[in-house]
Amino acid sequence: MKTGTLYLIPCTLGDTAVAQVLPQQVIDVARRLQHFVVEQPKSARQFLSLLKPELPIQSLHFETLNQHSDAKDLAKLLSPLLAGLDVGIISEAGCPGIADPGAELVALAHQQGIPVVPLVGPSSILLALMASGLDGQRFAFHGYLPIAEAERNKTIVALEAESARRKQTQLFIETPYRNEKLYAALLACCRPQTRLCIATDLSLTSESIQTRAIAQWKSQPMPQLNKRPSIFLLLAA
Amino acid sequence: MKTGTLYLIPCTLGDTAVAQVLPQQVIDVARRLQHFVVEQPKSARQFLSLLKPELPIQSLHFETLNQHSDAKDLAKLLSPLLAGLDVGIISEAGCPGIADPGAELVALAHQQGIPVVPLVGPSSILLALMASGLDGQRFAFHGYLPIAEAERNKTIVALEAESARRKQTQLFIETPYRNEKLYAALLACCRPQTRLCIATDLSLTSESIQTRAIAQWKSQPMPQLNKRPSIFLLLAA
Repeated sequence: MKTGTLYLIPCTLGDTAVAQVLPQQVIDVARRLQHFVVEQPKSARQFLSLLKPELPIQSLHFETLNQHSDAKDLAKLLSPLLAGLDVGIISEAGCPGIADPGAELVALAHQQGIPVVPLVGPSSILLALMASGLDGQRFAFHGYLPIAEAERNKTIVALEAESARRKQTQLFIETPYRNEKLYAALLACCRPQTRLCIATDLSLTSESIQTRAIAQWKSQPMPQLNKRPSIFLLLAA
Repeated sequence: MKTGTLYLIPCTLGDTAVAQVLPQQVIDVARRLQHFVVEQPKSARQFLSLLKPELPIQSLHFETLNQHSDAKDLAKLLSPLLAGLDVGIISEAGCPGIADPGAELVALAHQQGIPVVPLVGPSSILLALMASGLDGQRFAFHGYLPIAEAERNKTIVALEAESARRKQTQLFIETPYRNEKLYAALLACCRPQTRLCIATDLSLTSESIQTRAIAQWKSQPMPQLNKRPSIFLLLAA
């Protein structure tokens, strides 16, 4: 029997119009699916209701996959696919499979020969890299830096050295309420000529993207970063 | 005087419907602009004609920025922006600023305080990473590997070792007519348990995305990769 297709369905990065960040054909695929694997059913339902699904929201099937999920429960999430039905993965924000638990399910789908189709949508990592003006030929995303101050500062210095050696843009994130601490640490640890891009509230009306040398950041007022989702990008001179 | 905005406008990755890969509001922004910086005016005109611009194509202004451009000519590309007009950057395929010359112009825009707005569209790097099932928490894109065989093989072994040490997905590309040579080198150089994803013709009807351990790739027929744009992703076990 032919298996279904596992679609990776991006969603908005916050309160934006769907047509601003999702292509019409992505909206059309999401509207016709009946089976979903999501991080939180409540927010997935809210997102899907914006797309006006073909069937009533109550009749759609949602399975939960998040950081608390057990690896041994993954296989049963694929059962609709093995029965020939299409399934969509939706994460909390942006593109599934990038820095979220969906990747494990995708890996299992590959093992079972289930076709995986990624759909186009907003990724804060990619939007930040595009708009930074920093080197997009070589880049690395590191997720969260260590929380403890000494270890975090050591990591920043190591990333800057690696950026200089490899001519590689370094990308990382922080829990939004700690952004200003990370900003202060970057200004304290990095060389004056190193360029730092801070991309905040991407795709939202409050979006702000600025690339400055560390010396320039030091000479201007601290940007408003508290509790605003941000990507930090660093390229050593 | 208020400056214009520099928009980063993604385009299709090949022969696909625009509505499959571009949000409606991105199409709307591109339709109303009159000034563009592009890698090749001919293909940019073809792309824009699909979007049905508000003004006749002949009345749009195209400036060329590619790998032959001189750094000292960059500044004049910003002159419409300084005169208060919006400008769009379009690359040959996918998202401008990622592995293309547009990044230098974006960097200059930041220096002059010109707002930069990245728009959502298809990136083969991001689509491949989403669909690979490999770790999206930590990843690095390396562009092209060295061409000379000995140096390329050394690089593959080094990338695999780094992937194991950092639990980091390694992404790289090859000129499409050399894809099969790179494939053979990966099978020869990598450990049996290392996972390799090959993502080919992304977003096209001929799209193919497969993740297998090296040992599995060795036990199946060689995939058809010749002259097909592909992204290679590797994650050591």
